[in-house]
Amino acid sequence: MDEPTLHPDVAPLAFLLGTWTGQGQGEYPTIEPFTWADTTRFFHVGKPVLLYEQRTKDTKTGEPRHAESGFIRIGSAVDTVELVVAHSTGHVELADGVVDGERVEFTSALVRGTGTAKDVDLVHRVYLLDGSTLRVTLAMAAVGEPLTHHLRSELTRQS
Amino acid sequence: MDEPTLHPDVAPLAFLLGTWTGQGQGEYPTIEPFTWADTTRFFHVGKPVLLYEQRTKDTKTGEPRHAESGFIRIGSAVDTVELVVAHSTGHVELADGVVDGERVEFTSALVRGTGTAKDVDLVHRVYLLDGSTLRVTLAMAAVGEPLTHHLRSELTRQS
Repeated sequence: MDEPTLHPDVAPLAFLLGTWTGQGQGEYPTIEPFTWADTTRFFHVGKPVLLYEQRTKDTKTGEPRHAESGFIRIGSAVDTVELVVAHSTGHVELADGVVDGERVEFTSALVRGTGTAKDVDLVHRVYLLDGSTLRVTLAMAAVGEPLTHHLRSELTRQS
Repeated sequence: MDEPTLHPDVAPLAFLLGTWTGQGQGEYPTIEPFTWADTTRFFHVGKPVLLYEQRTKDTKTGEPRHAESGFIRIGSAVDTVELVVAHSTGHVELADGVVDGERVEFTSALVRGTGTAKDVDLVHRVYLLDGSTLRVTLAMAAVGEPLTHHLRSELTRQS
């Protein structure tokens, strides 16, 4: 199947495109530090939106852990984008992003969970292409803690 | 790769599992009726959650149209489930579901959109396995209209 042409509106996000794999390290005041194997994919079908998927596995056991799926849309102002994500943890997230070269920073406008989900109030994400490494960091305010560093991963493009 | 064993908690949702394709018909008071080609996938990785994807294409042109991605989790009460979904239209949705045999009905608890998204207030979905046909209906209250039938599709399992 032919690869569709990238819609010009999402050209500023082209640095994210591909399937990325690597390792992550997590910490938070309420839990033990942990590591994971990460597969993150940004792709498109020719429309002015990117599709996003993250799947993680326990580094030691290989068991699946977290999953996220969603979309990045173009915002109403120059260099702004919008992230809409569903999390396997029962959360949905709307975030406003700003693109600056090969870096995009998202601050959540809304995080809400189902009845069985933990309380998450705020999520802050940065995706930075540093040479050939995609550096991802995520901080959150959750379960009564203020905005605190939570996740860091370093990913390499596989395709 | 071996297929993981279905987690017993999601066994009541096993009737949804697979990749489903078929046709859909849409209507709403504010738009012209339309049709689409639908690919809907429910799958799992051995955890007590289903992964959900819907991708649609214009029946006539084959161009991609709508996309949704998310998860179905088990709720806190018997026969209840939780749907968390991100839409390519810039919406996120949390919904409470009730499973009754090979039928699951979801009513949204929250629908919110990004700054560029249309107003959607309420979404009501039914997935019903009728013989070998998955019948999907979706009603919504949006852009000032009350809860009104919007989408209907009939899908056949491909795998």
